[in-house]
Amino acid sequence: MVVSLRLPSLTSLFSPITTTTTTANSLRRRSPAFIRRSRSYRFQSQQPPPPPLAARFSSSQGTAAAETASEEQRVDSNAKSRVNPDRDRVITPRSQDFNAWYLDVIANAELADYGPVRGTMVIRPYGYAIWEAIQEYLNVRFKETGHSNMYFPQFIPYSFIEKEASHVEGFSPELALVTIGGGKELEEKLVVRPTSETMVNHMFTQWIHSYRDLPLMVNQWVNVTRWEHRTKPFVRTLEFLWQEGHTAHATPEEAENEAMQMINVYTKFAYEQAAIPVIVGRKSRVETFAGASITYTIEAMMGDRKALQAGTSHNLGQNFSRAFETQVVDTTFTDENGQRQHVWQTSWAISTRFVGGIIMTHGDDAGLMLPPRVAPIQVVIIPIWKKDDDKVGVLNAASSVKEVLQTAGVKVKLDDTDQRTPGWKFNFWEMKGVPLRIEIGPRDVSSGSVVISRRDIPGKQGKVFGISMEPSSLEAYVKDKLDEIQSALLEQATSFRDSNIVDVSSYDELKVAISQGKWARGPWSASLQFFLNLVEMVEFYDFEGCGVSGGEKYMAIRTSNFD
Amino acid sequence: MVVSLRLPSLTSLFSPITTTTTTANSLRRRSPAFIRRSRSYRFQSQQPPPPPLAARFSSSQGTAAAETASEEQRVDSNAKSRVNPDRDRVITPRSQDFNAWYLDVIANAELADYGPVRGTMVIRPYGYAIWEAIQEYLNVRFKETGHSNMYFPQFIPYSFIEKEASHVEGFSPELALVTIGGGKELEEKLVVRPTSETMVNHMFTQWIHSYRDLPLMVNQWVNVTRWEHRTKPFVRTLEFLWQEGHTAHATPEEAENEAMQMINVYTKFAYEQAAIPVIVGRKSRVETFAGASITYTIEAMMGDRKALQAGTSHNLGQNFSRAFETQVVDTTFTDENGQRQHVWQTSWAISTRFVGGIIMTHGDDAGLMLPPRVAPIQVVIIPIWKKDDDKVGVLNAASSVKEVLQTAGVKVKLDDTDQRTPGWKFNFWEMKGVPLRIEIGPRDVSSGSVVISRRDIPGKQGKVFGISMEPSSLEAYVKDKLDEIQSALLEQATSFRDSNIVDVSSYDELKVAISQGKWARGPWSASLQFFLNLVEMVEFYDFEGCGVSGGEKYMAIRTSNFD
Repeated sequence: MVVSLRLPSLTSLFSPITTTTTTANSLRRRSPAFIRRSRSYRFQSQQPPPPPLAARFSSSQGTAAAETASEEQRVDSNAKSRVNPDRDRVITPRSQDFNAWYLDVIANAELADYGPVRGTMVIRPYGYAIWEAIQEYLNVRFKETGHSNMYFPQFIPYSFIEKEASHVEGFSPELALVTIGGGKELEEKLVVRPTSETMVNHMFTQWIHSYRDLPLMVNQWVNVTRWEHRTKPFVRTLEFLWQEGHTAHATPEEAENEAMQMINVYTKFAYEQAAIPVIVGRKSRVETFAGASITYTIEAMMGDRKALQAGTSHNLGQNFSRAFETQVVDTTFTDENGQRQHVWQTSWAISTRFVGGIIMTHGDDAGLMLPPRVAPIQVVIIPIWKKDDDKVGVLNAASSVKEVLQTAGVKVKLDDTDQRTPGWKFNFWEMKGVPLRIEIGPRDVSSGSVVISRRDIPGKQGKVFGISMEPSSLEAYVKDKLDEIQSALLEQATSFRDSNIVDVSSYDELKVAISQGKWARGPWSASLQFFLNLVEMVEFYDFEGCGVSGGEKYMAIRTSNFD
Repeated sequence: MVVSLRLPSLTSLFSPITTTTTTANSLRRRSPAFIRRSRSYRFQSQQPPPPPLAARFSSSQGTAAAETASEEQRVDSNAKSRVNPDRDRVITPRSQDFNAWYLDVIANAELADYGPVRGTMVIRPYGYAIWEAIQEYLNVRFKETGHSNMYFPQFIPYSFIEKEASHVEGFSPELALVTIGGGKELEEKLVVRPTSETMVNHMFTQWIHSYRDLPLMVNQWVNVTRWEHRTKPFVRTLEFLWQEGHTAHATPEEAENEAMQMINVYTKFAYEQAAIPVIVGRKSRVETFAGASITYTIEAMMGDRKALQAGTSHNLGQNFSRAFETQVVDTTFTDENGQRQHVWQTSWAISTRFVGGIIMTHGDDAGLMLPPRVAPIQVVIIPIWKKDDDKVGVLNAASSVKEVLQTAGVKVKLDDTDQRTPGWKFNFWEMKGVPLRIEIGPRDVSSGSVVISRRDIPGKQGKVFGISMEPSSLEAYVKDKLDEIQSALLEQATSFRDSNIVDVSSYDELKVAISQGKWARGPWSASLQFFLNLVEMVEFYDFEGCGVSGGEKYMAIRTSNFD
């Protein structure tokens, strides 16, 4: 799948859930408007509720034929669940309350749970596996582009944070501080890493002496802590996981190219793996990372048409290397002419927030819907039998289908438990967002074929009978379908995004678009200079007082005068 | 390579650098005896010193023929460096001062550096890549044995730690506490995770309701913090990286089998990947993990004949599930007969300390020596030319050799910089522990062959001329040699270990063995009952006052009466 990164200039509503804003913005985003949404702060149920429609099926397979989805009935199971949306359903419909739906999906699909400390999150195996898919892809790209993984300590002396003026202003309100260690009050408070620029600069001063030591390009996959007051699983939590890349270069051009390169890596990942058609842009001054010269960003439109900051790449200029020159050694190097120079730096990050973005981009009333390339389970096999005579044959066929797909590198799960009926399983795995379902019953065994259903196309339309079990043709069919689903999800999200962007040419038009919950695209007189070769320039601007809707403060994106 | 886990019963000296000791032991290990070694606490040089013998070579290749290692001279380069051990050498000889050598190797090979907070460590890319090799292997094994990765928050309410009596006793002296968050004093202090049993139990209570929810088998790769007073890079640091597995089971047998299974996974890893012939055993009561019923351990003999605890697996019994029953929900489940039962648990961990174990097992006076299976770079290619006319041909040949090996899955680095001479590079990559070196000069290009040197066999003996560049034969030769080195390192470590173990039958004999710096193996009357199918039972016993040598407190291992 080839995805063009060349996007039209856009204006966007921006849900200010960024974790990297300046203090001024931090205060704004904690406006009373948030309070309306706070009832959804806790998961609605602390214990995993039964999956949708669970009560319609017995808890033990084969005990009562009427309660078991037969091969005839099963065709309609999707349709039925949508016909009776309120019966036994524990997931709030998405259209009714997007936020409640989001929290229900996270709880029901067992993606995450709340930790005992306010605002913390336990990432459960199914949610963590999505993060692992993100890590696996990006880790390879980071290494291909010349970065090495390493580890910086998470405890930062408080004095480090104070060195860069806007950095301390941006982060000091949200720090967690260690004041006691080994039973004793510490002489200097330690900051639990909210980001590592200061620590990185402290170490870079010891490693960079000459232009031969440059570029220095590293990355770490770690936890970070920001004392957030309003939190939401994955999207904004007190502690979260991310990768943070840090680089130092000999020239401003190299640093700018690096910052661009990494936002492009993120963009490609978003399109090709997560099927999220992000808008690439540059943050306005007020949204620029605390300490950066320029912040590039990818912004994604969620199912409620709000924007999610999905990744950022900062050109730090010489801000940190100058800030650290008060030390005995500073982050300077000797260039090829023997002159001392400050290094030019970048940093860039993607976090577990991205998992939230995947949920909110693709999910529907039935629950989660995962793009195949980030799905922990790509195919679930449901064996179906009524008579005990059929059981062995069906389970054998199901196992061999599993074997075939597993060998072909497909992530496949065989749900052969006796505890649940096929109908229950259909709904359960649908709710978990598994892209493809394979059903195998006695008739299928006789005919040497299987039934395959797509998660993204509900009911009969997404279901195909009589797919041959013959290994090579089954493998080809499944891989082809997974590719189709991957493309279909991107197309759907792209058309949704584009149908919710309005071109505006005046402030009044912009206000109308915002009040309709759409993104508004238009020229912006306050635009900054363009930089280098970013294919698309999008800048964000905070229109004071405009675009307040549904309890969230919106921001409009206006393009620069670029095209 | 098949490695038998059936080991002779052993007695061991035990350098008490465990991070999981009880309080009593924690106090003992902080005895004044440590002070003698404290001068080595800081790296001897904060800035990366030049590699050994650097000054003997010019800093620019080809400028002066006399300073360039010619093809004729290069045969002797290893020999020379050993002949003049003190000339320009910055790595303290291992035999002279093992601890100083260890710190020098870490600094010179750029494995780690000190963080700004006392006792913290920055793991640099080359050191981190060894940790990544450990992770890649174990992560696959954990999943194969039915475990899922997930993430628990690192902030633990202080009250959790207090729930399990011996746990709080063991950990409270070494906790880091967050007392301020978001600018405000917190109502309850938060513990920065020293280990996660309490957090895990808090969450398990919410997930485990019936026997159908068991076994619950998870793992996380995370940072942990213990406020250690004596630290040493990799071996014991205030913050370190590890994986911690946590499982819950319906029966004590299952928990015991799990604890055994995981210590066996670690053992296999140590032998087959790290080439470290660990002794598998069970800790004595005083060394058992705070809160566990049984602690299984793998203990490795370092180059100074001291033992390193390289991994542990704990059978926690019902200790934590009982401790957490004071909560509204407790860690009990309904068994198949409808009875409420406490779950049986395990936890198990390997940390970045293992990297220290690899350094101290295999390193020699020339620096690091890495087993091929954990080496970030398995083969380094050094092109050699004197005349500019030769340069293109040599570099082309070197690139194509690199390509061949890379395609074959070998981790290969081509050091084609102009900045350093071949001789400098020989020493540098030797010091970095790269298992194989390929040299390519003009003569080699003419004859279509290369010269290959083994890191583990110094000088001429480890060097073979005339290895064909023909891709398939070169690939086969290199892979074969890497396997040979892997085996040779294990054999060497095993014979070193075995030659330093003495059988003793009385306390006096034991004291003699200890005073000679050896491990003593003998019966131990205080032995506990054996458990199930662990092939080898080793128990540790702390002989008060005996075995103190070189400023370290030793522990003797005595076997049980098993054989």
